[in-house]
Amino acid sequence: MNAEIIAVGSELLTPQRLDTNSLFLTEHLNNLGIEVVCKMVVGDDRSRLAEAVRGALARSEIILLTGGLGPTEDDVTREAVAAALGRSLVFRADLLEWIEERFRRAGRRMAEINRRQAYIIEGAEAWRNDNGTAPGLWVEHDGRVVILLPGPPAELQPMFLRECLPKLERWAPRQVIRTRVYRVAGMPESDLDQLIAPVYRKYANPITTILAAPGDIQIHLRARCATAEEAERLLDELGGQIEVLLGDKIYSRNGESLEVVVGARLRAAGATLSVAESCTAGLLAARITEVPGSSDYFLGGFLVYSADLKVRLLGVPRALLDEHGVVSEPVAQAMAAGARERTQSTYALAVTGVAGPSGGTDAAPVGTVCIGLADSTGADARRFRFPGDRARVRTVAVQTALDWLRRRLG
Amino acid sequence: MNAEIIAVGSELLTPQRLDTNSLFLTEHLNNLGIEVVCKMVVGDDRSRLAEAVRGALARSEIILLTGGLGPTEDDVTREAVAAALGRSLVFRADLLEWIEERFRRAGRRMAEINRRQAYIIEGAEAWRNDNGTAPGLWVEHDGRVVILLPGPPAELQPMFLRECLPKLERWAPRQVIRTRVYRVAGMPESDLDQLIAPVYRKYANPITTILAAPGDIQIHLRARCATAEEAERLLDELGGQIEVLLGDKIYSRNGESLEVVVGARLRAAGATLSVAESCTAGLLAARITEVPGSSDYFLGGFLVYSADLKVRLLGVPRALLDEHGVVSEPVAQAMAAGARERTQSTYALAVTGVAGPSGGTDAAPVGTVCIGLADSTGADARRFRFPGDRARVRTVAVQTALDWLRRRLG
Repeated sequence: MNAEIIAVGSELLTPQRLDTNSLFLTEHLNNLGIEVVCKMVVGDDRSRLAEAVRGALARSEIILLTGGLGPTEDDVTREAVAAALGRSLVFRADLLEWIEERFRRAGRRMAEINRRQAYIIEGAEAWRNDNGTAPGLWVEHDGRVVILLPGPPAELQPMFLRECLPKLERWAPRQVIRTRVYRVAGMPESDLDQLIAPVYRKYANPITTILAAPGDIQIHLRARCATAEEAERLLDELGGQIEVLLGDKIYSRNGESLEVVVGARLRAAGATLSVAESCTAGLLAARITEVPGSSDYFLGGFLVYSADLKVRLLGVPRALLDEHGVVSEPVAQAMAAGARERTQSTYALAVTGVAGPSGGTDAAPVGTVCIGLADSTGADARRFRFPGDRARVRTVAVQTALDWLRRRLG
Repeated sequence: MNAEIIAVGSELLTPQRLDTNSLFLTEHLNNLGIEVVCKMVVGDDRSRLAEAVRGALARSEIILLTGGLGPTEDDVTREAVAAALGRSLVFRADLLEWIEERFRRAGRRMAEINRRQAYIIEGAEAWRNDNGTAPGLWVEHDGRVVILLPGPPAELQPMFLRECLPKLERWAPRQVIRTRVYRVAGMPESDLDQLIAPVYRKYANPITTILAAPGDIQIHLRARCATAEEAERLLDELGGQIEVLLGDKIYSRNGESLEVVVGARLRAAGATLSVAESCTAGLLAARITEVPGSSDYFLGGFLVYSADLKVRLLGVPRALLDEHGVVSEPVAQAMAAGARERTQSTYALAVTGVAGPSGGTDAAPVGTVCIGLADSTGADARRFRFPGDRARVRTVAVQTALDWLRRRLG
């Protein structure tokens, strides 16, 4: 069963505003096994909105409209939906009484324009609003249902939960949706897709979606079944094959971020971490400490943006800088070893590179990053070349450093 | 002239994700006098998307689609638009060569599936992508235009600004719009609005929009006139009154970020900067070094997340920690002085605080942040209490530290 959500309001078409009610509604619809296949934002325009409702009715069983139920002239949702369904608006004396009563209780007199809110679409069920004057409406039509909800979240949410959700549960055939989110580091999107597409393409259910951010890919599996057990079985079946193909490139099976995964492993091992950052200049430490409680395993470290501070704060031999250059594996190695020694941490990560746009050399062109990792057995370093602009190079460098530590932690 | 924006991607129909590209696009379209009358989100479904494009073409002159241009099977935008326009997809050898070249430069081999991105809609103009492999497309059709842009903002935004915007400016009827962006630090949005609203409300043109981020407010003025001179005159007239009211709380008159403003002043003064970060753990340094060329004035510094490292790396006296607590003005002062001395920088900023959600004490509840600033005349510290969650407290702490340095730099 499919649903569409139409948010009504010209203010939602400005550069400053987004419709967020649809997130709340989608979550609850998905839990009933109802898929949201289209979302729209339409301004306060009666004929445009009526056309949008007609289009949605031609495609989907459930249409939810949010907003445009106020008392003013530019609140057009009631009229537009009535027009789309070819029904009239009818006056409900009991609703007017209830609206007047609300005003009375608030010690105010109802303005004449609020009468408009007592008109409902012919044949609709009307819901009272605990936190406002706009009633919500439920209109069944040719085996479909059109639902009108007030726009303010404080009015929409309680009304949806109290009135709409139980009615939808009875109305829609029950289905269950279960999802699984894998996260993968250190692999370009196209390589990953080439590897796993032959597997996931065999399944129309679960649906597979791949989302790529710099250095970080999410694989979303979504199974839609009659029972939770069946959905989980399908996720295990497809997920199992993906896990075999990607192996330890998968760092999370539940959508957790890399800094959360690394943090949990450090904590479990009773280990601590320090950093020495040059081109990332704090970005690595800031990522690690996004996690509440990271002070349990993160000690601190060194920002050595200038060559001079690499020598003075970390004890990187000046001869090493002169011989290999600031962006080199020996320097990354020495930075990691220096940070570990000076902070007494179990592990230390070091990053030195050329994020660009300028500063590249023949030996280390823009995008070159060397990462060092030190532990009780010594210090290693690896050299990478990341594509993209300054921000992307720094982000991928952080991701790559964290992922190396994750693998080391096993 | 009307536009519609269609965001493509099943992930944008989940309860977790919103389409934000449309805000960026709307702002620029509005600046050209183009109204956005409908926004849609459609999943990765070829026929549903083709139908959405057909519907939009029947209503509006300009259709922008974002996303669904990747190399995988579930990237359906090219095919859906071709179907809606009744055109075929044609292979462009030069685009394939350019995509292959991108991979080569990154030291990788192109995966076979990326060939799909070299197919364009018959008769379209193709734009190269600086930050990805998906070309953008511009297709004119019966006096309308359909524009296909990649989904990732880092790809979409530069492509839109470089290729699409100038083309739209020529294509749409001309109007002159001039904007000015003030940025303000250290003031809550409601206080700012109360102060300047009596002034800007008198003007229907320029339009004033206030955008608030944690610790950072932008005031956008937009004048729409027959000539550029008239628009600039109106901006000067309203802007001048706002500048008088806000004084040195305004840190930028051209939209530049605080880190750019501070960096320019440090460079102009021939001064250098170092940091000592506890609760922000690298976020301050990462902000400063987002600016290309920041190595001219930023030396580096210390991440002293643990109390122990505050003593060992910065020489903060242990007695000071015991007497005043880790989050205190004397400790922030000692951190700043220690960082300055050890890096030989002109200025040093220090941040120590409780970002939460746990770790608060009676003396320093969650949200308490002490900031230190050292220069040749000594070290000062200030105490703040910032509302909000962990991420917000850290962001506002960074903003506040940078703004203090900006004022010191004069």
